[in-house]
Amino acid sequence: MAEKTAFIGVGNMGGPMAANLAEAGYDVVVFDLSTKACDDAKARGLAVASSVATAVEGARIIITMLPAGRHVTAVWGELAGLAEDGALLVDCSTIDVASAREAHALVEGRGRLTLDAPVSGGTGGAEAGTLTFMVGGSKSAFAVGGPVLEAMGKKVVHCGDPGAGQAAKICNNMILGISMIGVAEAFVLAEKLGLSHQALYDVASTSSGQCWSLTTYCPVPGPVPTSPANKGYTPGFSAELMLKDLTLAQDAALSSGAATPLGAEARQLYKLFDQLGEGGRDFSGIINFLRGADHSGPAD
Amino acid sequence: MAEKTAFIGVGNMGGPMAANLAEAGYDVVVFDLSTKACDDAKARGLAVASSVATAVEGARIIITMLPAGRHVTAVWGELAGLAEDGALLVDCSTIDVASAREAHALVEGRGRLTLDAPVSGGTGGAEAGTLTFMVGGSKSAFAVGGPVLEAMGKKVVHCGDPGAGQAAKICNNMILGISMIGVAEAFVLAEKLGLSHQALYDVASTSSGQCWSLTTYCPVPGPVPTSPANKGYTPGFSAELMLKDLTLAQDAALSSGAATPLGAEARQLYKLFDQLGEGGRDFSGIINFLRGADHSGPAD
Amino acid sequence: MAEKTAFIGVGNMGGPMAANLAEAGYDVVVFDLSTKACDDAKARGLAVASSVATAVEGARIIITMLPAGRHVTAVWGELAGLAEDGALLVDCSTIDVASAREAHALVEGRGRLTLDAPVSGGTGGAEAGTLTFMVGGSKSAFAVGGPVLEAMGKKVVHCGDPGAGQAAKICNNMILGISMIGVAEAFVLAEKLGLSHQALYDVASTSSGQCWSLTTYCPVPGPVPTSPANKGYTPGFSAELMLKDLTLAQDAALSSGAATPLGAEARQLYKLFDQLGEGGRDFSGIINFLRGADHSGPAD
Amino acid sequence: MAEKTAFIGVGNMGGPMAANLAEAGYDVVVFDLSTKACDDAKARGLAVASSVATAVEGARIIITMLPAGRHVTAVWGELAGLAEDGALLVDCSTIDVASAREAHALVEGRGRLTLDAPVSGGTGGAEAGTLTFMVGGSKSAFAVGGPVLEAMGKKVVHCGDPGAGQAAKICNNMILGISMIGVAEAFVLAEKLGLSHQALYDVASTSSGQCWSLTTYCPVPGPVPTSPANKGYTPGFSAELMLKDLTLAQDAALSSGAATPLGAEARQLYKLFDQLGEGGRDFSGIINFLRGADHSGPAD
Repeated sequence: MAEKTAFIGVGNMGGPMAANLAEAGYDVVVFDLSTKACDDAKARGLAVASSVATAVEGARIIITMLPAGRHVTAVWGELAGLAEDGALLVDCSTIDVASAREAHALVEGRGRLTLDAPVSGGTGGAEAGTLTFMVGGSKSAFAVGGPVLEAMGKKVVHCGDPGAGQAAKICNNMILGISMIGVAEAFVLAEKLGLSHQALYDVASTSSGQCWSLTTYCPVPGPVPTSPANKGYTPGFSAELMLKDLTLAQDAALSSGAATPLGAEARQLYKLFDQLGEGGRDFSGIINFLRGADHSGPAD
Repeated sequence: MAEKTAFIGVGNMGGPMAANLAEAGYDVVVFDLSTKACDDAKARGLAVASSVATAVEGARIIITMLPAGRHVTAVWGELAGLAEDGALLVDCSTIDVASAREAHALVEGRGRLTLDAPVSGGTGGAEAGTLTFMVGGSKSAFAVGGPVLEAMGKKVVHCGDPGAGQAAKICNNMILGISMIGVAEAFVLAEKLGLSHQALYDVASTSSGQCWSLTTYCPVPGPVPTSPANKGYTPGFSAELMLKDLTLAQDAALSSGAATPLGAEARQLYKLFDQLGEGGRDFSGIINFLRGADHSGPAD
Repeated sequence: MAEKTAFIGVGNMGGPMAANLAEAGYDVVVFDLSTKACDDAKARGLAVASSVATAVEGARIIITMLPAGRHVTAVWGELAGLAEDGALLVDCSTIDVASAREAHALVEGRGRLTLDAPVSGGTGGAEAGTLTFMVGGSKSAFAVGGPVLEAMGKKVVHCGDPGAGQAAKICNNMILGISMIGVAEAFVLAEKLGLSHQALYDVASTSSGQCWSLTTYCPVPGPVPTSPANKGYTPGFSAELMLKDLTLAQDAALSSGAATPLGAEARQLYKLFDQLGEGGRDFSGIINFLRGADHSGPAD
Repeated sequence: MAEKTAFIGVGNMGGPMAANLAEAGYDVVVFDLSTKACDDAKARGLAVASSVATAVEGARIIITMLPAGRHVTAVWGELAGLAEDGALLVDCSTIDVASAREAHALVEGRGRLTLDAPVSGGTGGAEAGTLTFMVGGSKSAFAVGGPVLEAMGKKVVHCGDPGAGQAAKICNNMILGISMIGVAEAFVLAEKLGLSHQALYDVASTSSGQCWSLTTYCPVPGPVPTSPANKGYTPGFSAELMLKDLTLAQDAALSSGAATPLGAEARQLYKLFDQLGEGGRDFSGIINFLRGADHSGPAD
């Protein structure tokens, strides 16, 4: 349990994740290029190293949580020389599938075990230790890494070979982005037709229109009191993160040769919404873009 | 209970609905322009009139189940002169909102009560009496008509004023068409990325990608054994009916001035699919159009 | 030449058109529901009648120029009783194909000749008498009506049977709306890739990307000095009129069962743009919506 | 003039291009991994080397014409060590902008001059020496390379810095793909509305719908006798090559952060068309996909 664990990248997500690991008894040392992130980590009581090299020295477990594929392949490229033989390396970033597979390959051999393990659940889930991990890698790597991830989340799913964790995340989030826009369009159309929010909710939530975007995260205030629509569209899951995931999905669709017409269109709509300066809002706020200037809607 | 009830339009849906009404004790007389439909109704033991006029003579309840808005306004135009004072008139067709409202207006006054009450549940639900009715009209009309509809279905929802039943149906089915395509695209992308159907299902069905199109009506064989994908995409709910509903939704969006980009695109995709001669398949079969010529997918 | 000619609807387009007819020697009497339009017509020296009935009394030629299909069918419904036997009736409004055909049918018989003749060229063309007329109706109606239209425009094309004028206009303007967005997207992508406006213009204007939207109406300032982009996107042809035409095209596509995926998407984009309060700008201004907040673009 | 010139990649395009160079007096040596391509080159009277290294030895000019970005960066990576100081290197492939820029960077320094110079004009233009070259690179490189390219084409445009040639090509072809679909949709809608092909052509070709896709490459037989529609949609420019270019455009849009909704949708439509096994047809043949099963259209 007191194995030395290096955690590279301790921003809004990585910081609380590392703290949960430490709380679970792991001997955690962190590193981040940002002074602020390092200070925040210290404030959480975490040991902070002065470089990637010192952070990973002697570590049996190395976790990375970074913004994009190029950062991950750069750091894992360094780790190829630095990581111990037989170490477990886990990347929890949400990145493109091609870079994820490249990272696995970069550190291959020498008994090392590697996993891609992107998360869902946001900063709230990171703090509370209730994240979901979608994991790609060999069965033996998963056997070792699964318990480590369980210390930071409540659900850990082995999705398949290297890259499968990233693939599962972008496929899921592509459905999510599409269904949220679909639900938002339905509410906008209902408003124009004089159908109340509650009436549409009552019909669709109990019938074939049911989906998480409607019944858990309803984009109009009222029917689901806990949804961000009731709090001025404070995220939750921001529109700019949804745009990032939809862009990763399109990236994968282009390079693998998949036809995804609604996925492509959903990315365009979040891009247009983000360009209006609305990227910091919850992604369900796209209903206001679809509805246009009159944001009131009918009273229920 | 033994009130005379006229049922106009006894095809694949109307026939079994009228039979369920008769079984519940209503004194049903039917009419249809099609000789075959009349013969089928006789075979179900129903009384068949020789015209709309004789069917509705003395009827306290009049129900219509017709293909499109123009048929409904034509028949209700006739009913304006024929229906008794104080009669209840219910249209169960799925038609455009504007025609539905026009129908209500055509028979207004003289104590008549009017409802638009489109259904979901298909021919299976019509036979089994398990339809869902989405109902628009006044509260007093719903108070009288609700019990009548309960004799033909298991769920009856009052959605609002005249036209609100049609509005609720097309809004719900627009979500359905969009989410089905979204789920299908995710499976196609997963296949290209080497992620198994079951792994995507396991992740998405328990997370933010969850929707009826995935968890009840999964468009790939395997994860949901009862879905049409396991039976060669035999409907269920055919692609041509989904196209009809998506076209009604776009009709309403154009005339009411709503922006529904994914709803518009979904209608285009079902149109292109239908034009390939695939309209008779279950609407979940659109995955084969999105996937292209190689329809096999990876083995799980 | 001095035949009595009634002109119903003398707003921004109809006013100058009627004036050009009078100048060409026609004995013009006008009517409009708007007092302001009537005052403007008087200021142009036109005779103003107090009702449709007095305007068309004794008229051998009747022209209508109205906002939408419902206005046209309402007025032509009146004309059915009022217009002289053998009169020529011409509707110059831009309306849906179905209403256009209904209007023809409403006044049929009694030797009357009917044309639908929507225009392009805007208020500038109406004033200058340089409009293009796209005309639907019988050959004999066109033989009589063609010269009348020539008094108000520089080009008059007989497109076919009743409704064909409207059909030609919306098909042309659907190409226009699509190609303008396509050109705008290309400039936005060029900006992101560091390719100058002029370089893209030089390549595309002389090759397979050439189109009227690029070479006559270029949506970025510079390459085509007379385009609205050089005048702050003052119309020209406003985005809200493009939205109207794209909506008519979708209307026709839905009711005739045509697949028009880019036409549908173009309508959505102009709708979203219009909802942001930008409908009064020239339709080439949609490039600013596609580009997002930073509207500067690279210096050339 | 008799400078040694290496030409790497002599397939359907590169073969005739190299032959034209030789004819213009250049001392050309070619190489290709494909034996067939080498045999064809010999049949054209070209000298064939046994490796890239022997082909480029002593060459002052090196030209590459390869299928995709990864091939170009691989070969230019080799050339980094092999090419003479001060040599001119020109890549004529159509590839992604990022790889094009990477290729420039790979051989930088040592007085070398580099250009990206993708072409349009197809195999016909390659044989006839009438290609258009869109060129990116420094002014000094263009000063040296321009005359070389003129030996293979009739038009050579300097578009800007490294990568600008590729950027210009994909921006132009994105307009082309979009406008072709737009024109095809307009003809399909015209057919449904009973408007003849010729009437739509007559209106649009002389008005704001005018574009190269309509007036040079009309997707219905008749109005433009030389267009592929008159020859059963034999390319010309195949749908699979259009799909390739639209995919490159989306690639660039994703990585540069551009919103291109119609460009994205056009790529989806060509993907769906290609998946039906139609990629070998001329790209104007997409009208048959949009029209659906009844391919006849109205007689004119």
